[in-house]
Amino acid sequence: MAIHELKPSPGEYSYVFGGVAPRLSVKPGDIVKVSTEDCFGGRVTHQDQLPSEVVPFSELNPVSGPIEVAGAEVGDLLAVHFVSIVPARSTAISSTFPHFGALTPTHETAMLAAPLEERVWFYDLDLDSGTATFRARRSDHTLRLPLDPMHGTVGVAPAGGETRLVVTPSTYGGNMDTPEVRAGATLYLPVNVPGALLSIGDGHARQGEGEVCGTGLECAMNTVIAIDLVKGGAPAWPRIESDDFIMTTGSTRPLEDAYRISQKELVDWTSDLTGLDTLDAYQLVSQLGLAPAANVCDPNYTMVAKLPTWALGAAKAYGGVHQRLRAAAEAYLTR
Amino acid sequence: MAIHELKPSPGEYSYVFGGVAPRLSVKPGDIVKVSTEDCFGGRVTHQDQLPSEVVPFSELNPVSGPIEVAGAEVGDLLAVHFVSIVPARSTAISSTFPHFGALTPTHETAMLAAPLEERVWFYDLDLDSGTATFRARRSDHTLRLPLDPMHGTVGVAPAGGETRLVVTPSTYGGNMDTPEVRAGATLYLPVNVPGALLSIGDGHARQGEGEVCGTGLECAMNTVIAIDLVKGGAPAWPRIESDDFIMTTGSTRPLEDAYRISQKELVDWTSDLTGLDTLDAYQLVSQLGLAPAANVCDPNYTMVAKLPTWALGAAKAYGGVHQRLRAAAEAYLTR
Amino acid sequence: MAIHELKPSPGEYSYVFGGVAPRLSVKPGDIVKVSTEDCFGGRVTHQDQLPSEVVPFSELNPVSGPIEVAGAEVGDLLAVHFVSIVPARSTAISSTFPHFGALTPTHETAMLAAPLEERVWFYDLDLDSGTATFRARRSDHTLRLPLDPMHGTVGVAPAGGETRLVVTPSTYGGNMDTPEVRAGATLYLPVNVPGALLSIGDGHARQGEGEVCGTGLECAMNTVIAIDLVKGGAPAWPRIESDDFIMTTGSTRPLEDAYRISQKELVDWTSDLTGLDTLDAYQLVSQLGLAPAANVCDPNYTMVAKLPTWALGAAKAYGGVHQRLRAAAEAYLTR
Amino acid sequence: MAIHELKPSPGEYSYVFGGVAPRLSVKPGDIVKVSTEDCFGGRVTHQDQLPSEVVPFSELNPVSGPIEVAGAEVGDLLAVHFVSIVPARSTAISSTFPHFGALTPTHETAMLAAPLEERVWFYDLDLDSGTATFRARRSDHTLRLPLDPMHGTVGVAPAGGETRLVVTPSTYGGNMDTPEVRAGATLYLPVNVPGALLSIGDGHARQGEGEVCGTGLECAMNTVIAIDLVKGGAPAWPRIESDDFIMTTGSTRPLEDAYRISQKELVDWTSDLTGLDTLDAYQLVSQLGLAPAANVCDPNYTMVAKLPTWALGAAKAYGGVHQRLRAAAEAYLTR
Repeated sequence: MAIHELKPSPGEYSYVFGGVAPRLSVKPGDIVKVSTEDCFGGRVTHQDQLPSEVVPFSELNPVSGPIEVAGAEVGDLLAVHFVSIVPARSTAISSTFPHFGALTPTHETAMLAAPLEERVWFYDLDLDSGTATFRARRSDHTLRLPLDPMHGTVGVAPAGGETRLVVTPSTYGGNMDTPEVRAGATLYLPVNVPGALLSIGDGHARQGEGEVCGTGLECAMNTVIAIDLVKGGAPAWPRIESDDFIMTTGSTRPLEDAYRISQKELVDWTSDLTGLDTLDAYQLVSQLGLAPAANVCDPNYTMVAKLPTWALGAAKAYGGVHQRLRAAAEAYLTR
Repeated sequence: MAIHELKPSPGEYSYVFGGVAPRLSVKPGDIVKVSTEDCFGGRVTHQDQLPSEVVPFSELNPVSGPIEVAGAEVGDLLAVHFVSIVPARSTAISSTFPHFGALTPTHETAMLAAPLEERVWFYDLDLDSGTATFRARRSDHTLRLPLDPMHGTVGVAPAGGETRLVVTPSTYGGNMDTPEVRAGATLYLPVNVPGALLSIGDGHARQGEGEVCGTGLECAMNTVIAIDLVKGGAPAWPRIESDDFIMTTGSTRPLEDAYRISQKELVDWTSDLTGLDTLDAYQLVSQLGLAPAANVCDPNYTMVAKLPTWALGAAKAYGGVHQRLRAAAEAYLTR
Repeated sequence: MAIHELKPSPGEYSYVFGGVAPRLSVKPGDIVKVSTEDCFGGRVTHQDQLPSEVVPFSELNPVSGPIEVAGAEVGDLLAVHFVSIVPARSTAISSTFPHFGALTPTHETAMLAAPLEERVWFYDLDLDSGTATFRARRSDHTLRLPLDPMHGTVGVAPAGGETRLVVTPSTYGGNMDTPEVRAGATLYLPVNVPGALLSIGDGHARQGEGEVCGTGLECAMNTVIAIDLVKGGAPAWPRIESDDFIMTTGSTRPLEDAYRISQKELVDWTSDLTGLDTLDAYQLVSQLGLAPAANVCDPNYTMVAKLPTWALGAAKAYGGVHQRLRAAAEAYLTR
Repeated sequence: MAIHELKPSPGEYSYVFGGVAPRLSVKPGDIVKVSTEDCFGGRVTHQDQLPSEVVPFSELNPVSGPIEVAGAEVGDLLAVHFVSIVPARSTAISSTFPHFGALTPTHETAMLAAPLEERVWFYDLDLDSGTATFRARRSDHTLRLPLDPMHGTVGVAPAGGETRLVVTPSTYGGNMDTPEVRAGATLYLPVNVPGALLSIGDGHARQGEGEVCGTGLECAMNTVIAIDLVKGGAPAWPRIESDDFIMTTGSTRPLEDAYRISQKELVDWTSDLTGLDTLDAYQLVSQLGLAPAANVCDPNYTMVAKLPTWALGAAKAYGGVHQRLRAAAEAYLTR
């Protein structure tokens, strides 16, 4: 097990999945310490700056990577376990953004009505107490929110030779913006090109489900991941596993189609893991499943489907790779 | 405080919201013991019966009521607190249903492809252990699921003189099919006609979020509700309050519009309760809110938006009606 | 063949489909001269009035009727042929309306952004030249548009005992807002209650496809219809026939589901009329069909699917009822 | 004016927009004779072959190009006039395709229900009579359909360094699948990279609006285009001009958002051309506009919005470039 470090300098971030040469090569079983920038590339430095004036749309969400994984072949499954995700600055930033977010006209839900005002919020982060302080901009209201650090954007090179802007989530992962990608979770991504070419960014100190205003508590992160590879058997869409849940994702529009994808994926996975026939698995997921929104603001919307692992009995997904990575993470953290 | 009983005989169920004479009159502060039938009207009695053959579509989801609430006027807010919801039979039933559910062609997502097979599952309920036993139909797999009884369908007479089939959720409540309508929760419904005309049905011993196959653990229920009335100030859409969350709902299609409604309602409610301006409240909801699907199978889809009550400080919704009803429920249960 | 007249006085309009006693009884083969009010109930009388201030939402779109058709039974098909549709006033009115229209936040596509300005346009109608004159409100621009009178709202009582506000289009017809319901066309509606209970309103001197701002050239109309009845064989959704096209409709959300319904209906109808198997009919519709939007602003969106009648060979829909009604109309007009 | 020829040999087709080196360089004002393959790459040669077995999904829709246009810079508008589009073979092919088309479960409208049967239809083309003969596969039914040749896929390199599979329509054009891209029309595309990098493919001998089964009369084409460049002023989305209509497009999901984009674009264009303020232009488009579906089967759906050019008075789009290209085409054809 090697420990690598990926600390991009300002000019070394990527803005697309696919079509970029690897910046680091690792082996399955390795650990990588990754530094990520915030979604504004660190360019928003005070509350009265408007993000739309300092960051071009195509430079939102810089990602660190790509990381090439030795031996990863098309059709394999890349397992990315999040060992730790720690805010790298003492402030996180959130904002509305013109034509972005679920409750304002956007480029795709195009309207003649004017978009919402652009406004910025700075949150002070306190790692000791594990809180971020919300300060209202039009009153003196403040509130401490619990930190729950996560990465909004984690993905690999797309299939078919595509190169995609990092803001779009799809089959290759990308900007799914689900709080489920937190420390302790394993993200499974299908490998579409040799080496997989993993990139990571868009850390949030926390976010609500749906990311309704379009941003979370955007924050540079010091993150540690453990990487593994499952040969063959890649699913069509990204999956997530925590100690308590298996989770599937679907990213498309309209939102019910994202829901359909995530639910069908969960039914199929449940069927695979339990031996239930498809309709029996459909029944079980219908009664036990959870279905939170991830994002309803990005170019594709993302829904997550969750089934508690206790419902699977002794079955372990992908030969227990999550449990092995969990143990490796534990060993790393207590080394 | 009077205690009423509403036990419809077989011919006394309703199949619509609106346009039905009240079967019971109560006063704010009263308690009502309500018996409800399962969504199949009790007509599915063994696993090899097909629901579509024994229940006409327009007789699905019979509801008990309407209950007239004295003094309720247009624009008021009806508060319905669920004191207890207890399965009335020892079995619950779930099924796929032709052209119903999220992963099959339906009447509205119309396709030339054939619909999924219709299949029925019977669950044994054990109130002592608080479990329902899932038994696969194509294998010997069984699994005990925790009971979490709820009502899928609770609503009042619609506005504008409309009469709506009970299967449709909308501004008047109806078939929202959210597991959040469980014992301990207060459902807030806008009053559209004098007396409000509340009806209740569609008990589920439990269901997953989204009710993806189209049915939960359908079950007749013995339910106790406590009713109160808030004069004026009715919101546009149903809201829910539990000890831990304020919740809003939106029911329409596509699913992102149901999400938009629920989120806008939550932003507005948060702004009302905290004094935050709209964009500050939008920011807070964006970072703290939860957004589970309720149903993605009914004629309108329902999304729920949730904010933890700790974020509201000392503010109490509607003058603390939930807390008062909670106390009344406690008093009733321990009487 | 009797000729009837239905001229409601101001208090005699209806605002719902279903739940209203018939105001006229006719027989299949009869002709009815119907007066209809404009969608604002005639209350907007000059350009500086705001419709939202003079007309409550539930009183938009008054309809004339219901008309009871003798012998119409559940499952029959009501054929409503439009003999003539003539503007009854010399002006037509259009407007934006707060939270209505496709390019502004609405009650269902709910947003925090402000809705568009409400503005009214009056058009002078000239029946001799067949034109309506558009006059811009913020400049001197004028343009003569060809008249193409139609009814946006034509429907029968819904199934299942429902009563629906007239603004909603659905399986019973209603506010489909398609320009295809013009003189010379036959509208086919499924009969859901004895007597069918037909109502008509919402005349437009013309409208674009999609009715994007939410209103057409709203106009009171003097309309003549010829009514017939086809026993049995009612389709699930309204259909339209002109001399040149058979047309089907679907009204729901999202718009692709309205499209799916209309296309499936057209495939099924084509298969019925030609004897083609379903996939062969699907192929033919795919290559020859037209698919214009009707409305993308009402509570349900409506899509129309069209197939040219020449593609059907000698086949006549419903035993040639359109051709017979066309001849009856001719006889009436030249009598 | 130079006349170029682009006849790719089998290995020279592209499958993506963006990221491909130009195969031909031309100047504004030049004419290009382009050969295009059918969407199956010519590999389906008889009716009993299943396209899904002979063509991998990522090799559907080969395009000819890219063509580099000298002087084209980011923000310019590329005008592509279709001088002639002539079927290159005597047969066209259509098919259903597993998980593709509007009336079957797909990868994005994911379901557990089985997809429709895959079936292939061969059409004999007769250029003299201008017809294609439909032959049913399950009966002896035949029908002659008028030819109306068009290109489903025409686009340029995307912005932001993206590379996209040709099957997806978006802001850069691509697989919009609208019958409006026929001989006599000018397609306007925004230039996103120096040289624009235009590619063309997916000829259809004809198709219906919406392309409901997922394919048109797929056919290799001999096509002649005339190219021009308008400096600056590129719109956000592709536009089309014919002698009779200005047209705008929107490509996204759900279909109402594609409609919204196309309608907003048409309002803005109408405002630019006539000097009407935005709401006056909205009003005019609402009353005069047409709104046909283009495709409701591709990864993004496409809607078209059309306004008759007579409504624009003397105004000419982009300084009359369509009229000039039309004249050049005439000169070329009668040379």
